[in-house]
Amino acid sequence: MSAIEDRLKQLGLELPAPPAAPPGARLPFAFVRVHGDTAYVSGHGPIDGAEVLVTGSVGGDVSGEQAYDAARATALSILASLKLQLGDLDRVTGWIKALGFVKCAEGFDATPAVINGFSDLILELWGEAGQHARSAIGAGELPFGIPVEIEAIVGVSSHP
Amino acid sequence: MSAIEDRLKQLGLELPAPPAAPPGARLPFAFVRVHGDTAYVSGHGPIDGAEVLVTGSVGGDVSGEQAYDAARATALSILASLKLQLGDLDRVTGWIKALGFVKCAEGFDATPAVINGFSDLILELWGEAGQHARSAIGAGELPFGIPVEIEAIVGVSSHP
Amino acid sequence: MSAIEDRLKQLGLELPAPPAAPPGARLPFAFVRVHGDTAYVSGHGPIDGAEVLVTGSVGGDVSGEQAYDAARATALSILASLKLQLGDLDRVTGWIKALGFVKCAEGFDATPAVINGFSDLILELWGEAGQHARSAIGAGELPFGIPVEIEAIVGVSSHP
Repeated sequence: MSAIEDRLKQLGLELPAPPAAPPGARLPFAFVRVHGDTAYVSGHGPIDGAEVLVTGSVGGDVSGEQAYDAARATALSILASLKLQLGDLDRVTGWIKALGFVKCAEGFDATPAVINGFSDLILELWGEAGQHARSAIGAGELPFGIPVEIEAIVGVSSHP
Repeated sequence: MSAIEDRLKQLGLELPAPPAAPPGARLPFAFVRVHGDTAYVSGHGPIDGAEVLVTGSVGGDVSGEQAYDAARATALSILASLKLQLGDLDRVTGWIKALGFVKCAEGFDATPAVINGFSDLILELWGEAGQHARSAIGAGELPFGIPVEIEAIVGVSSHP
Repeated sequence: MSAIEDRLKQLGLELPAPPAAPPGARLPFAFVRVHGDTAYVSGHGPIDGAEVLVTGSVGGDVSGEQAYDAARATALSILASLKLQLGDLDRVTGWIKALGFVKCAEGFDATPAVINGFSDLILELWGEAGQHARSAIGAGELPFGIPVEIEAIVGVSSHP
């Protein structure tokens, strides 16, 4: 078992199914695209296969804590995509950048506290190599009713 | 004629004029910036030279279909910028990443279906090499009243 | 003194303190992350250490001119982070990409004119090497009440 998957197991976490288009949607793009030693990860949400796990606006029908958990679930969905693409999460040599979007109810602006759900998990799993630059932005809308969407850039070793 | 321009012609498509600042605006930045074997493309909209082709909010005064077409027109504007910068679209060896923003009317969240207008055209033109990671986000506002804005990262060959 | 810091002094500008989390916030990420010859800069705002310098919506309680100045202050905060990370701003060999978000009051969409406050300063300091691709997007919300947030990608020399 890979070191990262071992760590996931220690944390009592399981990867969801890799993301798939929810009913009625067509997503004609790659969830992960590798260019040289860099992998670009598409915007992901809290999703298990095609099943959206949380919907709503943060600060409204979704609390700050629930949104933190949604960002953590989003990280797990990203890991499922990376595992599918790379074969082994240990090929992720380091995290580089994340861009998080939060669907905010009127007046909610604690977007960094939400995206911390993503960052905390990545740091728990990768330690120092999990350090990443980041932005946390309030979006007007996000697809499929999701409260959080995160895209990322990671460093990858070229060979398994 | 380059292979990509040949394909554009087969599809009955013509490139618009490269983007220019609409009257009253100053855009002191590069529409394309090359770094090593990677080209970063600025946010583009459905624009022909300085003429904005579509304005409005998607799901309001702009329908989902019109927005799909606007994303396709945005792809063409991006291609015009890439041709101007690179000399030949065949120097684009692959598409890596796109980040699309959609100005949504209240309650419209089918942002992926809109940005598909961009992705579908890129895949029609480049095939497998057109595969890209992507996010489709609802923006609060976009400049010049445009309903869609897309930025991109592409791989380029260093020599023509 | 480095060439860029010399130029800052000629312009009568001083770098603010590097950004720190405002009271009550936790920001568990890197303000700058270097990957090969590329540095990824987290979203910054008009901030001096932990002190937020401007808050509000552009076109509402913050005027377009004040927002331009906020984007310029954001550039200075980014430079403070880059200096802290790289030791010397002269290690920035070129600017590649910026993504700016503007918190817009109802009806305000002149986001490029706002982010010009960033671009103009970078070009004043770096000249041709300061050229960058860019997008200027209206965000629904930004953290800490800031009116402008900008993230960036820059080229860096691997050794000081």
